[in-house]
Amino acid sequence: MVKADLEAVVKFNRERPDVYGNAHPKNLLRAIQEDGDHLSKLSSRHIYSIDQFERESLFQLFRLAAKYEANPDRFGTSLQGKILISAFYEPSTRTRLSFESAWHRLGGDIMSITDRSTTGIAKGESLADVGEMFNNYGDCVVLRDTNANSVREMMSALRIPIINAGNGTDEHPTQAMADLYTIFKWKPSLITEEGSEKINLCVVGLPSKMRTVRSLLKLVALFPECFGQVTIVNDQSMETMFDEGQATQLLDAGIDLQTSDCLDDVLPDADVVYINAIAWEGNSFNQYGKQFHITSDSPLKKSAIILHPLARGAELCCSLDSTEHNWYFAQARGAVFLRQALLTCLVQRAERVLDIV
Amino acid sequence: MVKADLEAVVKFNRERPDVYGNAHPKNLLRAIQEDGDHLSKLSSRHIYSIDQFERESLFQLFRLAAKYEANPDRFGTSLQGKILISAFYEPSTRTRLSFESAWHRLGGDIMSITDRSTTGIAKGESLADVGEMFNNYGDCVVLRDTNANSVREMMSALRIPIINAGNGTDEHPTQAMADLYTIFKWKPSLITEEGSEKINLCVVGLPSKMRTVRSLLKLVALFPECFGQVTIVNDQSMETMFDEGQATQLLDAGIDLQTSDCLDDVLPDADVVYINAIAWEGNSFNQYGKQFHITSDSPLKKSAIILHPLARGAELCCSLDSTEHNWYFAQARGAVFLRQALLTCLVQRAERVLDIV
Amino acid sequence: MVKADLEAVVKFNRERPDVYGNAHPKNLLRAIQEDGDHLSKLSSRHIYSIDQFERESLFQLFRLAAKYEANPDRFGTSLQGKILISAFYEPSTRTRLSFESAWHRLGGDIMSITDRSTTGIAKGESLADVGEMFNNYGDCVVLRDTNANSVREMMSALRIPIINAGNGTDEHPTQAMADLYTIFKWKPSLITEEGSEKINLCVVGLPSKMRTVRSLLKLVALFPECFGQVTIVNDQSMETMFDEGQATQLLDAGIDLQTSDCLDDVLPDADVVYINAIAWEGNSFNQYGKQFHITSDSPLKKSAIILHPLARGAELCCSLDSTEHNWYFAQARGAVFLRQALLTCLVQRAERVLDIV
Repeated sequence: MVKADLEAVVKFNRERPDVYGNAHPKNLLRAIQEDGDHLSKLSSRHIYSIDQFERESLFQLFRLAAKYEANPDRFGTSLQGKILISAFYEPSTRTRLSFESAWHRLGGDIMSITDRSTTGIAKGESLADVGEMFNNYGDCVVLRDTNANSVREMMSALRIPIINAGNGTDEHPTQAMADLYTIFKWKPSLITEEGSEKINLCVVGLPSKMRTVRSLLKLVALFPECFGQVTIVNDQSMETMFDEGQATQLLDAGIDLQTSDCLDDVLPDADVVYINAIAWEGNSFNQYGKQFHITSDSPLKKSAIILHPLARGAELCCSLDSTEHNWYFAQARGAVFLRQALLTCLVQRAERVLDIV
Repeated sequence: MVKADLEAVVKFNRERPDVYGNAHPKNLLRAIQEDGDHLSKLSSRHIYSIDQFERESLFQLFRLAAKYEANPDRFGTSLQGKILISAFYEPSTRTRLSFESAWHRLGGDIMSITDRSTTGIAKGESLADVGEMFNNYGDCVVLRDTNANSVREMMSALRIPIINAGNGTDEHPTQAMADLYTIFKWKPSLITEEGSEKINLCVVGLPSKMRTVRSLLKLVALFPECFGQVTIVNDQSMETMFDEGQATQLLDAGIDLQTSDCLDDVLPDADVVYINAIAWEGNSFNQYGKQFHITSDSPLKKSAIILHPLARGAELCCSLDSTEHNWYFAQARGAVFLRQALLTCLVQRAERVLDIV
Repeated sequence: MVKADLEAVVKFNRERPDVYGNAHPKNLLRAIQEDGDHLSKLSSRHIYSIDQFERESLFQLFRLAAKYEANPDRFGTSLQGKILISAFYEPSTRTRLSFESAWHRLGGDIMSITDRSTTGIAKGESLADVGEMFNNYGDCVVLRDTNANSVREMMSALRIPIINAGNGTDEHPTQAMADLYTIFKWKPSLITEEGSEKINLCVVGLPSKMRTVRSLLKLVALFPECFGQVTIVNDQSMETMFDEGQATQLLDAGIDLQTSDCLDDVLPDADVVYINAIAWEGNSFNQYGKQFHITSDSPLKKSAIILHPLARGAELCCSLDSTEHNWYFAQARGAVFLRQALLTCLVQRAERVLDIV
């Protein structure tokens, strides 16, 4: 390779492209007043399901996340002396590194388990015993497993907090929190001017089978004043689309819940488009609606933003990366700060970062 | 799930149940006078076999472990700047996390090898060359391998200390040390009033095949004044039960060594019951005496304590977890501090934690 | 084992044998004057190929490496707060631990990926998306992959620096830099008395197929004043021995390039003998010239030194380890410091360690 060509290949820029979802977290900091009392519960609760959260705790978590995001280098010792047990019995690089980066940035130490077969579970050890073991070795656990019951079995013996980082097809609570955090950063007026502005949310995915969607819809149901229409797009029938209670929870909250099997019909009115790798169910490959994909030619609203929990496949075209619709990279970036906020509270270190203690 | 039920599921308590083997390490601190001279040898010795230890060094290690356990947050920088190479060629989560937690809590850094197939050994590299490589990268090695010779081959080239964390069916010295540390914490009078009180030890396991048992019996032989009867319970004949020298070592030390194939005959007189997952040989499943198991209905002495190196299976019933016999969780907890004591000495940092240097 | 025998087995010495390539890095420090300007480019360049380097930057990197090697305990906070993503999609223990040790010694944090199958790539995620993910989680990436294109695909999206730690059979730039660093430490007069002394280099390997050799020859071409003859030893024909441009690059630089299929013919004139595990191509076993091996009986020049990137097999006999020819262990030791120098510059921390900023 000619040296000039090589120079072009190896030179890189640290600055993010402007279009990568550049909401300033400071706007969210102004939109929410700090009130640490609403975080105190979090030091004695496992993080298992969105169902256990209230609006006020979530607002405070989002505020703390925004504080971390606005001052990413300030809190390098918040978790000093604390050990995270990062247990990914179901493999993951993205979520694992997101949690581990969050913990490292705050000065904590980490022990990783990335291979289920190296654990005693392969020998028949109970998950409760694994939990009792973790009590002696660390201060916090993050667990992902294809088996939806693992986290609860471990919780029965844990005396340190655990975060459910994905339990089968059930939930992925921190992902949903990161998603809503991104939406509020993008449009803090949803919080400050309650009711004056609602957004339409389009979710491309299968609520009955996708833990990210399941958790997200539970969260949406907690903030009905923010959402106008919520439209679920997939190719399934009503019987298979929702598990028991999923639709009801949204309707009872006053959400205008719609479904559609035609994405291009829904896009022109959607403010936030949440698209999942609809081909995936848990960690195995299943084909749900290969026909649902978004490109820069899709009939998107000019101001619409796109979210995707990543990793993405054909459903989200790279041509959108350089457009102002691209908020999926900001979503991944913000997820680290959201997790920092949660982890800090779980291990009783909130008093090191809150202004009013 | 109803929110109240969910609250009950996610709320957790940090306090240990009273019955989880709550001996105060301070009693052991009082029972042993500090004398760092007996630890000085440890900075230039690999930890390979119980055979290399003397009573006085062990007493000082137990004392240092008790110091760490009594002040778990005080020594967060003892191993600052030191790197541990955590090499588990034979998979393990429990022992690996025990060592890694011990090292992290003292401020050190860790590099883990959890997959033998990623090492040069798969390409035919000698273990001596692996040891020479480790000399350049770390300050201490912990190694577990199904091949009993690996640790010695590595030792031939190492200029940094290595701890044998389990070499085939041969030994597991730090486990045995942790076991005796637990016994002395439970009953410091064994040390302070020599000869005035002996305990009966019942070991359910196979000395010829179980490295935890092999190491433990060697340790017992060093403290004959503490033990009355030592009864080995299994269903094997004398020929297969002991390897050459195992029984002799105990008898020569003056131990009243017995064997039995009926656990319930032995329990009524046992003060300490050490039970192994008797179904396991190394890392493979072999059935040795499935009929040996302990439950809360077993004819245990009221004051008897149970030890188990964990992971446990059917042999140790969960009904015992909530009884005062349960010292197996305390054993796991104390093992971290015992390993801290040993690791500190190995990397020449004892002067940072001893009172008299 | 008798206790005295056991004592001999477990006792170890921290001191290196005198013959293990003991050049003092201070001589190299004196030979090169510090000039940080030549390092400034490195904070915005991925490290992909030797082709991108100039002599002056390399001299400054070698000087910084020598500074680190001369003061190994001084810079324990240089990388504090920085996160390395250690991604070994192609397994390695040696290179991975070399980089991780370098980073830990300077106070940084690490997240390791050691199993390609746990990444989204297994699900079809693009490497550019993986790069975008890494932007959010760390400050520097080290990548090894059997696929030679992976590092470039990742570079297309990275806004943090990446080091190519081996991309298929293409290059392994930091290994070659470590090799030349070792040669200059051994004979600083090559730098200080330009032209007054040249060394003959014998390379046992296959330039077309071995990334360590490919990178090394590119580096040699940058310093023609240091080398007299460069002789490539293998059993291949000229057509298969060199890829397009490899030989030309050396000849154009004025190197006296020779080839030979008889190692013992070349050794008597070789000052530096670089031998590769010639049986290996990437990570699979191929037989290239099993007849090429060096032992203490080989007709080596008295003052000749041997380099080998390790792991070694039958080609480099252990009988040489205790001779003054043994510079392959020094090579591995120095590689850590060379990587420290490079990593420090990449993450914009050179100003913490240079004397003149």
